[in-house]
Amino acid sequence: MRTFVLFVCLSVGCLAQRPKPCTSPPLLTGSLSVSAQNEKLMAYAKYEYDALGKRIRLSEFGSYDNKTFHLDVLLLFRQGVMYKINNRNRTCSKKPLSADFHPMEIPRNASLLGQVVIGSSSGPGQGVLVNTWEGELQMKKGPAKYMSTVTAFGCIPVSTLFHTRKNGWMVTSFFNNVIGLVDPQRLIPPHFCQGAQLEKRLDDDPVTFFNMF
Amino acid sequence: MRTFVLFVCLSVGCLAQRPKPCTSPPLLTGSLSVSAQNEKLMAYAKYEYDALGKRIRLSEFGSYDNKTFHLDVLLLFRQGVMYKINNRNRTCSKKPLSADFHPMEIPRNASLLGQVVIGSSSGPGQGVLVNTWEGELQMKKGPAKYMSTVTAFGCIPVSTLFHTRKNGWMVTSFFNNVIGLVDPQRLIPPHFCQGAQLEKRLDDDPVTFFNMF
Repeated sequence: MRTFVLFVCLSVGCLAQRPKPCTSPPLLTGSLSVSAQNEKLMAYAKYEYDALGKRIRLSEFGSYDNKTFHLDVLLLFRQGVMYKINNRNRTCSKKPLSADFHPMEIPRNASLLGQVVIGSSSGPGQGVLVNTWEGELQMKKGPAKYMSTVTAFGCIPVSTLFHTRKNGWMVTSFFNNVIGLVDPQRLIPPHFCQGAQLEKRLDDDPVTFFNMF
Repeated sequence: MRTFVLFVCLSVGCLAQRPKPCTSPPLLTGSLSVSAQNEKLMAYAKYEYDALGKRIRLSEFGSYDNKTFHLDVLLLFRQGVMYKINNRNRTCSKKPLSADFHPMEIPRNASLLGQVVIGSSSGPGQGVLVNTWEGELQMKKGPAKYMSTVTAFGCIPVSTLFHTRKNGWMVTSFFNNVIGLVDPQRLIPPHFCQGAQLEKRLDDDPVTFFNMF
């Protein structure tokens, strides 16, 4: 009962003020799934995220164009380096990463689409209050719409829709997020990456929270 | 802190046992959105749900094939009657409803796809534990796949994916659900419906939790 009263009080307290764009906790570990509207891409990934050290690790498997793929990458934005890691063969390719690090956040110029409870606010543990934001990102190929949902308490990512010309709407769903790094070592290149030579530069759109996955 | 400990205990307690298909609370009020993969259908609805009296009210607006629509229906399964209500003109059409009432539930033969936390379990009010189930429904046109997510505590609907040949995947997202009926009167036909004559029978697939919307 106490929990429930607290939950309702917190909810009402939050409803009383207009939500503001927020930044997610600097250290996060969790999972995500990505799917494209045209069903070309389906992927599941475990991620580690460190906004303090500007590092992201993604261990992903899925299918693209009916071909399965496995991708394990470590993005070190401060060094401007990306490692593609093959744990089975214990090999590594090292590529330049020209993109700036974009923290997981709701951009300042995003518009609040709405605040809702996923599940129910009628009992403890039955729901979570979330805010949904929308806006446009300026990409090389023109503006791209996004819609992003985060928890009202904690600014934990819930889902992101990002519109691409290639695949239509891309949906990224986050889950099993915990604050902190469960295994900090996963953000350090494995020792078999030490000999990897830096490969040719790629010319891509900037990597952001929304098109990263 | 106390809330947090309780939340973690509840989570761990639930994780210890394998989730079972569940039935949602008999009285629910909330909102839902429906969208089709092919972008032909987008709709937003407020719903009232009464499994005890076998009654459902849906006040829906949206677009189908780029045409906007507004639909306000009251389904009385016990009487086998459906009212289409036009509040502006205060008119009503009354149609036979041959379908059985299907409660909001996870079918007994559904398979557990997984249990995840939406948001985070790292702090109070930051997440909700949900179970995702999948299965097939036998429809007239052949089997149809579904994927349904409900909260682990309370069996509150979160989202349902239902595959139709016509529109591909249909996604129904539930939100702002509360246990109980906020306005029980909305499940009673308005007085201007009293004179409505019963219209011709329609021959449709059975109305279930998954294809109702």
